[in-house]
Amino acid sequence: MQAIQIINKNDKNTLEIGTVPDPELSDSDIQVKIAATAVNRADLLQRTGNYPPPKGASEILGLEMAGVVKKTGSEVTKWEPGDRVFGLLAGGGYAEYCTIHEDMAMEIPENLSFEEAAAIPETFLTAFQALEWLGKLQEQETVLIHAAGSGVGTSAIQLAHQIYDARIIATAGKQHKLDTARDLGADFAYNYKKQNYAEEIISDIGNDSVNVVVDFIGKPYWHKNIEVLAMDGRVVYLSFLGGHKVEEMSLIPILRKRLSIMGSTLRNRSEQYKIDLTKDFAQKTLSLFKTGSLSPVVDSIFDWSETETAHQRMKNNKNTGKIILTGM
Amino acid sequence: MQAIQIINKNDKNTLEIGTVPDPELSDSDIQVKIAATAVNRADLLQRTGNYPPPKGASEILGLEMAGVVKKTGSEVTKWEPGDRVFGLLAGGGYAEYCTIHEDMAMEIPENLSFEEAAAIPETFLTAFQALEWLGKLQEQETVLIHAAGSGVGTSAIQLAHQIYDARIIATAGKQHKLDTARDLGADFAYNYKKQNYAEEIISDIGNDSVNVVVDFIGKPYWHKNIEVLAMDGRVVYLSFLGGHKVEEMSLIPILRKRLSIMGSTLRNRSEQYKIDLTKDFAQKTLSLFKTGSLSPVVDSIFDWSETETAHQRMKNNKNTGKIILTGM
Repeated sequence: MQAIQIINKNDKNTLEIGTVPDPELSDSDIQVKIAATAVNRADLLQRTGNYPPPKGASEILGLEMAGVVKKTGSEVTKWEPGDRVFGLLAGGGYAEYCTIHEDMAMEIPENLSFEEAAAIPETFLTAFQALEWLGKLQEQETVLIHAAGSGVGTSAIQLAHQIYDARIIATAGKQHKLDTARDLGADFAYNYKKQNYAEEIISDIGNDSVNVVVDFIGKPYWHKNIEVLAMDGRVVYLSFLGGHKVEEMSLIPILRKRLSIMGSTLRNRSEQYKIDLTKDFAQKTLSLFKTGSLSPVVDSIFDWSETETAHQRMKNNKNTGKIILTGM
Repeated sequence: MQAIQIINKNDKNTLEIGTVPDPELSDSDIQVKIAATAVNRADLLQRTGNYPPPKGASEILGLEMAGVVKKTGSEVTKWEPGDRVFGLLAGGGYAEYCTIHEDMAMEIPENLSFEEAAAIPETFLTAFQALEWLGKLQEQETVLIHAAGSGVGTSAIQLAHQIYDARIIATAGKQHKLDTARDLGADFAYNYKKQNYAEEIISDIGNDSVNVVVDFIGKPYWHKNIEVLAMDGRVVYLSFLGGHKVEEMSLIPILRKRLSIMGSTLRNRSEQYKIDLTKDFAQKTLSLFKTGSLSPVVDSIFDWSETETAHQRMKNNKNTGKIILTGM
């Protein structure tokens, strides 16, 4: 099959469509003819050699896909050739074909195109894991979502609004991102460049008022997050874009407010974890995608021969929403 | 009824047995004639006025008791007068009688005296909450228990050994405490005054080998705890006896190892939480107390007219195990 290959896996690497062996189909796998995949920041790291794929995963870039089932393994019961499916991959999305465990695939809602479906898995499953599995967000609780303009941020706002009817606080650094956050369901949106969000939250909502924080920023927000958290509050870290070294942290609020502070990434989880997460996600959200209550945010669509241009767009932070590759 | 009263609730306070109204019996409560109660560090703080009881709780000292049911509220179905019961109190143990929600009381195993039963609730329920509800310790995981000679420490070692068949690492500062820890089921026991427990664990067991840490010390152990934790590791803080200010903390291990860092106290939890915890605890442990696989550690027994002496013994850290008051 054809797949995008990394030539010289270092700072001077290039991408090139080449011929590679078809992926192996095990008994519980389906083989999918990929129609669309999406670009993730991890792809940009992986091509420089700095973020090797986990053990057993494909060396080919691409962490999510949408397409059509072509073949099924001997033990597959859920799918038939021709079914439209999408899902998370440990790698291998930048290619004509991939294989995926049958329980990792989800049915594409009829109203969604392949390009839209390919924009869902990474951001929505990451946000779902953070809110449901780690943060254990409850109906009508208050959630603080940082980097609200990011893929995971916009997904988290939609999920918090649609599944949990949560009171949503969003932070971002640009007005159009704050506007998008409000459009998607945020009740409060603060510009971290102009406002101290902790002061704003205390003034607008009250002391100790936030049940769950989803944070990608790290160090600069540590003290403010702790300050606004309620009793039994939870913080879920997904990355540390603003640095990781906190100077002078007091442990007292952890005990006094009975806090839980957690971190997680999705990629290095076991296949069984991802299967369980996918099933729970599909059960709770696919009907909401069907009615349009939840929708993937697509920034732009590139033919996969233009992958380099697509990567540059992400590298330069030009995108709002997902960058899609198609035409395999 | 007679109860111990605090005269001058400040640094110069004294204790005195005096007459107070009987506690009110609500429909779902039982009234218990107390046969024994136990001393907790919280009692020493409360008598100075520094640790007021939570809203709605008795002003009388005493966070646990064992005794005999005397009266039952109109909706009580589980108990009859004459039943031997023990359990956690939000206050009111230093008295002839207490009232307690029928679901907060547990049946005293036949082989245990009142003095032994009164030594169980605070330490074992705190340890159980830390291991089962917060730390989610799994069968044969590895648990690191600090302050292994304390009441909660000895209880946690017993539970980790008997319920989870865990690999247990204990730390303490005295040889006889380390010996006790080994007797109760610890596989490894380190003297923190003479050994760097992180180095010892890495040498004896390996890198990233600890699934759950139960910590009372705080600051001096932060970096070492993080260092020895395994993927998906959990830290449960119950107090910060060694200080709370951590300088220069990196958030990276929280993400890389997918850690959860939690804190909790038992006393300020809701009644419903304590009921659920008590039920789960009773179901998983009472049969083990009956066979002697689990046993309370009693340090000494005082007539309640000698409560001041009993408090001094705790204040001077003379006790190993629980100090019991009786003779009400």
